[in-house]
Amino acid sequence: MNRHHRHHRIPVTVVGLGSMGSALAEAFIEAGHPTTVWNRTSSKAAPLVARGAVAAGMVDEAVAASGLVVACLTTYESTIEALEPAAAALKGRALVTLNSGSPAGARQMAAWARGHGARYLAGAVKNVPSAVGADDTLLYYSGERGVFEEFAPTLRVLGGDTVHLGADADLAALYEMAVGGTLLPALVGFFQGAAALQARGLTAASMVPFTVKWFEMINSILPVFAEEIDRGDYSKPASSVNVFLAGAAADEELGREANLDTRWHEPFHDLLRRAAEAGHGEHSIAALTEVLKKPGHPGQSA
Amino acid sequence: MNRHHRHHRIPVTVVGLGSMGSALAEAFIEAGHPTTVWNRTSSKAAPLVARGAVAAGMVDEAVAASGLVVACLTTYESTIEALEPAAAALKGRALVTLNSGSPAGARQMAAWARGHGARYLAGAVKNVPSAVGADDTLLYYSGERGVFEEFAPTLRVLGGDTVHLGADADLAALYEMAVGGTLLPALVGFFQGAAALQARGLTAASMVPFTVKWFEMINSILPVFAEEIDRGDYSKPASSVNVFLAGAAADEELGREANLDTRWHEPFHDLLRRAAEAGHGEHSIAALTEVLKKPGHPGQSA
Ligand SMILES: NC(=O)c1ccc[n+]([C@@H]2O[C@H](COP(=O)([O-])OP(=O)(O)OC[C@H]3O[C@@H](n4cnc5c(N)ncnc54)[C@H](OP(=O)(O)O)[C@@H]3O)[C@@H](O)[C@H]2O)c1
Ligand SMILES: NC(=O)c1ccc[n+]([C@@H]2O[C@H](COP(=O)([O-])OP(=O)(O)OC[C@H]3O[C@@H](n4cnc5c(N)ncnc54)[C@H](OP(=O)(O)O)[C@@H]3O)[C@@H](O)[C@H]2O)c1
Repeated sequence: MNRHHRHHRIPVTVVGLGSMGSALAEAFIEAGHPTTVWNRTSSKAAPLVARGAVAAGMVDEAVAASGLVVACLTTYESTIEALEPAAAALKGRALVTLNSGSPAGARQMAAWARGHGARYLAGAVKNVPSAVGADDTLLYYSGERGVFEEFAPTLRVLGGDTVHLGADADLAALYEMAVGGTLLPALVGFFQGAAALQARGLTAASMVPFTVKWFEMINSILPVFAEEIDRGDYSKPASSVNVFLAGAAADEELGREANLDTRWHEPFHDLLRRAAEAGHGEHSIAALTEVLKKPGHPGQSA
Repeated sequence: MNRHHRHHRIPVTVVGLGSMGSALAEAFIEAGHPTTVWNRTSSKAAPLVARGAVAAGMVDEAVAASGLVVACLTTYESTIEALEPAAAALKGRALVTLNSGSPAGARQMAAWARGHGARYLAGAVKNVPSAVGADDTLLYYSGERGVFEEFAPTLRVLGGDTVHLGADADLAALYEMAVGGTLLPALVGFFQGAAALQARGLTAASMVPFTVKWFEMINSILPVFAEEIDRGDYSKPASSVNVFLAGAAADEELGREANLDTRWHEPFHDLLRRAAEAGHGEHSIAALTEVLKKPGHPGQSA
């Protein structure tokens, strides 16, 4: 199972063995790292022990076992809660977190880790557990560059596209949220489309190839939107706010016909209306960016 | 400019010369089709006339000029309004609409067209105007298969990936909306991420490569979600409702920090809470599909 020589690989500890944490531990085991694991619900360690991991009984033993500790729990709060009994053991070790959370949460986590003498990197896995370990899988990190450089070869085991965003510990969380913020709304759009097809006796599967192309289309236009946003100039639209506004009524009509709860559309229609009222009707849909900024936003254009 | 021999190509009329209609007309001209154009605001015809199109003064003249009439106006309502003076001229001709709209709108359009003796196809362009004419560009059509088959070689000029979805005229609108429903929510997520980066002095452009990978990741998991939805079994989650719920607080925290109007998140958080209350907390996020279905939805699972 371990295709590499164990003595070439540094020992690693993984704390938190949910869907993502288990995938991370598995990748380290596969790559031949002596891997110690710990989880609050200890039964989740069993499949990893079967593959060669050592399960620690207590979290402080787990931390003491390796120079590199990777934590993947639900939130920063749960990470601090789980690591509290191991705080003394963290001194001088590298701690890497890979949960989702806010930039403020990452800063608190960084302060806590530094307070206990740990060398800290805040990271984010921009993919699903099954993609962990693949060459193309993206993970990014922020925090002290020296820690990143020291452990980059090991962290690359989790995904070949491993990036350091900068020295501020909260940058990974900021990008994680900025980039990841499309996920839930896009998925809800997909689920609603699936429910609309089901109302007609058609399958969700039948829309997958079309949706894949649709997201490729969205990808192709993102650079144009980013440029409009960075220049604050929305005057040459490929798709205008008014075109989206004209589609709003159709959303409600299909909702009624397919028996769907479309209340989540309302704030989007409201954003479109407010953009039109602010003079953006014939501007690019990217002008919604300005409507999302509250007074006092540093990037607010005139 | 016209790389093909005009006499091999059938005459085509394009009604509606907005961003999309102009791109359609341009593709027909480029492919060597004798192209007649009409737009309410006649000045929009000028660039097409410069490339070889003939501008008709009245919409009925435009319709009378070709056996195939392609209309691309804002909505079905505006299409009927614009074509009303040309109703008599439509008899025996093929009418293809390429606007967005609801299935109900498509059925009304089909009834109107058939009432005037037109052979009708309802289509949708699943891309931006600049992609019109490319080999990979997807357009789908629904309505009488014979009409599709007769004109498919010509329609393929608009995009190589040209598909017939079925005989019901409203199927293209249904898929257009089911698939297209991800666009506005996904873009608003992207715009909000851009505004969050700007609040930190970072650019929207810096998130584009990460977002492109993110949508590729979403594409890779859609088949799994579709299968869960089609089987109505959400019990083996890769990403659970509770994991998304745990992220909700972070959304609000970043919103405060970056001075953003995050009110559009509320219905999503509400959907997550309702899913958890319905027992889906540890189920796949695709279980939101069930929460979107109102009582009486034909595809509602138990
Ligand atoms: N799954 C994905 O697709 C995915 C993708 C990218 C990022 N992420 C992020 O990765 C993180 C983990 O996600 P996941 O899917 O692995 O979640 P999960 O399957 O729900 O696992 C959560 C883990 O956190 C532990 N935990 C939570 N609160 C704790 C506490 N107070 N004390 C000790 N342990 C605690 C759980 O322990 P128990 O087993 O004892 O409950 C479990 O190990 C999240 O921040 C998520 O957003 C997930
Ligand atoms: N642009 C895109 O990225 C895109 C992508 C896919 C699908 N679509 C769909 O394609 C359709 C057209 O979009 P577009 O971007 O081309 O819109 P647009 O640039 O706003 O153009 C709208 C067109 O409709 C005409 N029109 C509207 N109401 C009319 C009426 N009552 N009588 C006569 N003409 C009328 C306008 O004429 P005037 O010039 O006289 O105003 C104009 O030619 C929409 O349904 C849109 O959803 C667009």
